[in-house]
Amino acid sequence: MNKRKISRRTLLGGAATAAVMLFKSSYGRMIQTAIPESLYTDDPTKVVGPPPGAVGARSPFEHPVKKASDTSSRTPLQDLYGTITPADLHYERHHAGVPVIDPHKYELLIHGMVDKPMVFTLADLKRFPSVSRTCFLECSGNFRSNKETLTPQEICGLTSQSEWTGVMLTTLFREVGVQPRASWFLAEGGDAAVMTRSVPVRKAWDDAMIVYAQNGEAIRPEQGYPARLLLPGWEGNTNVKWLRRLELSDQPFMTREETSRYTYPVKDRIRQFSFEMDARSIITFPAFPQQVEKGWIEIRGIAWSGWGKIAQVEVSTNAGKTWQPARLQEPVLDKAHTAFRYLWQWNGETTEILSRATDETGYTQPTIQQLLNARGADMGGYHLNPVTAWVIQRDGKVLFRPEKWK
Amino acid sequence: MNKRKISRRTLLGGAATAAVMLFKSSYGRMIQTAIPESLYTDDPTKVVGPPPGAVGARSPFEHPVKKASDTSSRTPLQDLYGTITPADLHYERHHAGVPVIDPHKYELLIHGMVDKPMVFTLADLKRFPSVSRTCFLECSGNFRSNKETLTPQEICGLTSQSEWTGVMLTTLFREVGVQPRASWFLAEGGDAAVMTRSVPVRKAWDDAMIVYAQNGEAIRPEQGYPARLLLPGWEGNTNVKWLRRLELSDQPFMTREETSRYTYPVKDRIRQFSFEMDARSIITFPAFPQQVEKGWIEIRGIAWSGWGKIAQVEVSTNAGKTWQPARLQEPVLDKAHTAFRYLWQWNGETTEILSRATDETGYTQPTIQQLLNARGADMGGYHLNPVTAWVIQRDGKVLFRPEKWK
Repeated sequence: MNKRKISRRTLLGGAATAAVMLFKSSYGRMIQTAIPESLYTDDPTKVVGPPPGAVGARSPFEHPVKKASDTSSRTPLQDLYGTITPADLHYERHHAGVPVIDPHKYELLIHGMVDKPMVFTLADLKRFPSVSRTCFLECSGNFRSNKETLTPQEICGLTSQSEWTGVMLTTLFREVGVQPRASWFLAEGGDAAVMTRSVPVRKAWDDAMIVYAQNGEAIRPEQGYPARLLLPGWEGNTNVKWLRRLELSDQPFMTREETSRYTYPVKDRIRQFSFEMDARSIITFPAFPQQVEKGWIEIRGIAWSGWGKIAQVEVSTNAGKTWQPARLQEPVLDKAHTAFRYLWQWNGETTEILSRATDETGYTQPTIQQLLNARGADMGGYHLNPVTAWVIQRDGKVLFRPEKWK
Repeated sequence: MNKRKISRRTLLGGAATAAVMLFKSSYGRMIQTAIPESLYTDDPTKVVGPPPGAVGARSPFEHPVKKASDTSSRTPLQDLYGTITPADLHYERHHAGVPVIDPHKYELLIHGMVDKPMVFTLADLKRFPSVSRTCFLECSGNFRSNKETLTPQEICGLTSQSEWTGVMLTTLFREVGVQPRASWFLAEGGDAAVMTRSVPVRKAWDDAMIVYAQNGEAIRPEQGYPARLLLPGWEGNTNVKWLRRLELSDQPFMTREETSRYTYPVKDRIRQFSFEMDARSIITFPAFPQQVEKGWIEIRGIAWSGWGKIAQVEVSTNAGKTWQPARLQEPVLDKAHTAFRYLWQWNGETTEILSRATDETGYTQPTIQQLLNARGADMGGYHLNPVTAWVIQRDGKVLFRPEKWK
C-alpha cells in the first residue's frame, strides 16, 4: 500500500533517478533510469512500449526498500502482500557484513563424532535428493516499541519468508555416519565473524536443511550464498549463513553467540538455547503511517509460529475488549507466515485494533503484561512477541501504541 | 545448476560488468558493478564484507536471464529451483510492448449488462477483501521442437509461477450487479495493442481475480502493472494485462485475438475459445546443455495443469519402455507448477529420459503421436503439450529429442 505520490515532473526530472540510485545494494549499485519522456503519456494506448528484457524491473512508481543499519536491514512489511518476501527485500542481520564467496571454491566440512568425515562441494550438495519448503526466518531481537511513529517494518521487520530448496541435513548426516553419542553439532559460517552456533542433533532428524536456493533461484549473498543452514522456526542466527563447517559432539560448544549474546533473563535466571520463535502476529494494514477512511476496511496482517502451524488469528477492533476470528489464507503451512484478513466497518471513532495469534500447540501470543509476568521486568531484547496495538484516530491517522516496560 | 565458470580475472575485469550491463530491463537498465577487488579473497573470513543495503542483489556469480525477442521473453526453467519464479524472470508476451501506467491515474471500468456501471481506481480495488493464490501462467504458444540443442527455456519457457494477490472478480461483479443474462465479458488492456479477449462469465464465478500484487510486492510492469486479470489455468493471453475495461454481454465479442489468432485446427475444424492449458511436464535436470556423470542422478522437473491439481508424474529412464512415479513436492496446489523428483542410478549407457503428467481429472500428457492422432497433421502452434524426451549420450551430454510432425 505504497501511496507515495510521484508526479510526472518527479519522474522525468533528476529526482527519481537520484532516488533509485540511492538504493545501494551489496557489492555494487543498481541504477534504474527514469522513464524516457517518449513513453510517458496520458494515453498509454497510443504509445508502443519497450519490448521484453532479459530481466524485469519494478515499476518506477514502486520502490519498497529495507531500513538498513550497519548490521541489519528490515523488510518493509507494510508494503507487501501475501506471504512471499521478494528475495531482495529479505531482512538481513550480519555480524561482519556480506562475504564474497566463489561457489566453485565453496566447501562444507562435516566432521567430529562421525564415522567418515567428509567435504562437500556445492555441486555435491546439489546432487543429493532435494526438497523445497516455504518457511519464515526471524531474528530473535525482532522488536521495537519506543514511539508512536513506528511502522510494521520498524517494529518487527526482522522477519521474512521464502521458498527454500536444498538437501535435508539427515541425508548428509547419514552419508557421514553421525555417531549415536553425538547430541549437538556446531554450525560455522564462512564470513569474517566466523559465526558459530551449537544446535541439538534432534533438529537435524526433525526438519533441518542445507539450502542453496531461495524463491526459485540461487540463494542471495545476503542470505548465505552459496549455502546456509535452515532450521525452520528457530531463531535467525542459528540458521548459519555461508555455512562451511558442521562438527558433531556430545555437548554444546558454548560459543560467543550463545554465551555473551542470544541469551536473556527469565526472572532470576538466564535462558540459554532458546531456539523456537513463539507465535506472533502483526497487523500491517492499517498501520502507521497510513491513513484510513470511515467505512469498510479490510484489516490485514501476517501471523507465524516457530512451533508449527498457525491455528487461529483473532482481531480486536475495540482495544481488546472483544475478539473475532480472522480469515486465514490457505494453505496454512508449518512454521510459515500466514496471511490473515478481517473485514471491519469503522464508525469513525477513535479506537485501537489488535491481533493475536494462536498456534497448533495451543500457545497464544501474549500481551506485554503477560510477557512481563512470565519473564520479569528485565526481559532483555530477545524473543519478545507481544500483541501489537494500532491507535486509529478520528482523523483516520494510525499510530503505534508503544509498550513501556522499563 | 548454472555451472558457468567465472574467473577472478573475469570478475575484476571489464567482461563481467559488460555482461551484466547487457541485461537490459524494461524502461531502463540495471547496472551492477563488479566486486571491488578489496572484497575478493581466497579467505572470506579475513575480509569484512559490505553492510546490508536497501535492496539486495544477486551474487555476481549468478545471472539467470530470460531469452527475449521483440514480443516475448522466456523463463530460464533450467536455472530455477522449487516452484516460485522470481518476478524479474517471469516470462513475457506482449502485443505492443510494456506501457507506462501511472497508478494514480489507473481506472477500471465495468459496464455493459450490469445494473450499475462503475469505475474503480487502484485504491478502490485494494479496499475490497483480498485473496492470495499461487498458480502458473502459460502462453498458449509455448512449444518449440526444431533442434537437439534446445534448453527447457527454449522448449517451454513461456510459463512461470507467482503468488498473486488481489480481489476476486465475483466481488466486483456483485458490486456492479452483473445481470443474469450476461454470459460473456470482454477484458480490455490499456496497452497500445488494446488487447482484448472474451471470457465466459462462469470463469468469474469460479476463480477469476483482478490482481495487483505478485510474489509479495506490487505486480511488475511486464505483468500488467498496476492490475491484470488472472484466470487461473487459462491460456496466458486471456489474463489481460494493464486491465482497463470489462464489458458484460450475452455473447462473445469475436475480437482479433480469438478469430485471427489463438485458434487452431483440430482435424477438419477450427477450435476457438480453447481456454484451459492441458497437463504438461518437463524435466529441467538433466537437460541440454548440462552434462552428467555415471551414478546417482536426481531427475528434476515441473508439472502443471490448467484443469486442477497434478495427480501424478511418471518418469521413464529407458526411452518410454517403463515408467515409475516421481516424488511430488507438497503442498500440491490447484493449477500450479508442481516440482517432481526421481532418483535414478545411471549406468553410463546411452538412453532417453522422459516425464509425463496426469492431472486430477485423469487426463495424461500425450505423446506427440497421440496429439497428432487427436488433432491431425496440421496442428498449428497452440496448446501443444507433448511428452518431452532428453537423450543422454555415453559421454554424459544431454540433448533434446526433437519431435518432427510437419
